[in-house]
Amino acid sequence: MPDNNQSHITPIQRWKDGELHPPTDDALAIEEPLEIRVRGQNVAVTMRTPGHDEELAAGFLATEGLIKRREDVTEIAHCTEGEAARLGNTLNVFLGAGVDADLESLTRHVFASSSCGLCGKATIEAVQQDFPPVDSGVRIAPDIITGLPTKLRNAQATFEQTGGLHAAAVFDAAGELLVLREDVGRHNAVDKVVGHGLLKGHDYSNCLLMVSGRTSFEIMQKALAARIPIITAVSAPSSLAVDFARDSGQTLIGFLRGETMNVYSHPERVAG
Amino acid sequence: MPDNNQSHITPIQRWKDGELHPPTDDALAIEEPLEIRVRGQNVAVTMRTPGHDEELAAGFLATEGLIKRREDVTEIAHCTEGEAARLGNTLNVFLGAGVDADLESLTRHVFASSSCGLCGKATIEAVQQDFPPVDSGVRIAPDIITGLPTKLRNAQATFEQTGGLHAAAVFDAAGELLVLREDVGRHNAVDKVVGHGLLKGHDYSNCLLMVSGRTSFEIMQKALAARIPIITAVSAPSSLAVDFARDSGQTLIGFLRGETMNVYSHPERVAG
Repeated sequence: MPDNNQSHITPIQRWKDGELHPPTDDALAIEEPLEIRVRGQNVAVTMRTPGHDEELAAGFLATEGLIKRREDVTEIAHCTEGEAARLGNTLNVFLGAGVDADLESLTRHVFASSSCGLCGKATIEAVQQDFPPVDSGVRIAPDIITGLPTKLRNAQATFEQTGGLHAAAVFDAAGELLVLREDVGRHNAVDKVVGHGLLKGHDYSNCLLMVSGRTSFEIMQKALAARIPIITAVSAPSSLAVDFARDSGQTLIGFLRGETMNVYSHPERVAG
Repeated sequence: MPDNNQSHITPIQRWKDGELHPPTDDALAIEEPLEIRVRGQNVAVTMRTPGHDEELAAGFLATEGLIKRREDVTEIAHCTEGEAARLGNTLNVFLGAGVDADLESLTRHVFASSSCGLCGKATIEAVQQDFPPVDSGVRIAPDIITGLPTKLRNAQATFEQTGGLHAAAVFDAAGELLVLREDVGRHNAVDKVVGHGLLKGHDYSNCLLMVSGRTSFEIMQKALAARIPIITAVSAPSSLAVDFARDSGQTLIGFLRGETMNVYSHPERVAG
């Protein structure tokens, strides 16, 4: 079990068979802050697992509506000056001169935990002004969907070591894994796969997003920003995630375990 | 399964035994935004499960270091003016005239996702200036600790219905449950039990905090603000949570399942 950029080895003690055993090495998921700067201004600090930082930054800015396409981003580079450079936890995002980036609005939005209004309905309407509903006609067969949790788990390298990471993955309509990312923060894992698509120029509009945990309003919002029509999760959705999915035209699936799943919205896409 | 303020009934469709069944009612954990105002100024919007909002606000302000004792809070009341009153998702916190509340600093801190520096070490040092390490001499017997997950699950009412809520609970040194709160947001669940203690005048300095999921830097920071010396979780801690616990004098336990657990720091408190 070597140290790498996603996990860290440390001595711990196990209580087992009625006694506290001597220290042994164990792997922990790394959590460190990342500061994202746009045009030199700090727009967010997030606690994340290092790795694919450029994707995280691009995905974060895309899901916040600040950038829309690959060409909006000129360069994403680690800060090379002073203390920030030494620590490697500051990223500069350079935007094209023509990009109309409302950094004030972004800062307010991030500050408000990605919530724009004072009730769920107001929030949903505010978001849908930015991101129109999806209208993908894609269909995915149920037996492909029920096979995804096994594929996700098999591809989750760091989770196996640490048990401490959330995963997000994008699959195509044939059930092929396009990208998987892990992070201590579940929003970060989604931002990374969204950013991957943006930076690589991949179109997710007929794809499926799978997350290892629960689905909340924010996860649905991020998926909509990436135009993803089907979202599946191993665990439960919140009430607002379901309301959001019904309004946004997204198919939302939860409790995907074994050969069963719950379909909360737009079941027409679950079809062989 | 009645609708209540923590869960909402909605029709869903189950995929089971190779077919999509007709819609049946299911319970979802409610997620709605709460705006917290201090002295009339918006300091945070969080996506939360309604209920115990006053505890959430008090706990949030305590764990952010803005208030320190019950007497700092004059009143916590839902907004009674205009649209905000109708929706019931805005809380006004009134502080005593003598309370020196740095709202600018709080806003910056919240904006930065509770991260104050550019590396884990810097963050930990910044926090420890606000909250000194714990020095509790409390001991809790291992067989009391291994019995806590069952007590937690038995007391989790809404989780049973929805599968969608995180739990946080405070137990005393004899393993008696003092308070349990559930929320779609794991930080909110911790803020609620911390706020409960503050508003009721309970001293948690010889108690144990248990969370249903993983432990991150922020969870440890909130526990330290409440002077809680022992933190246990069903799942894994992050690297920064462990670093934090070792520096802050807190006992951190993870993977508490069945008769086993991992002890990451200060094992001297795990003793019969």
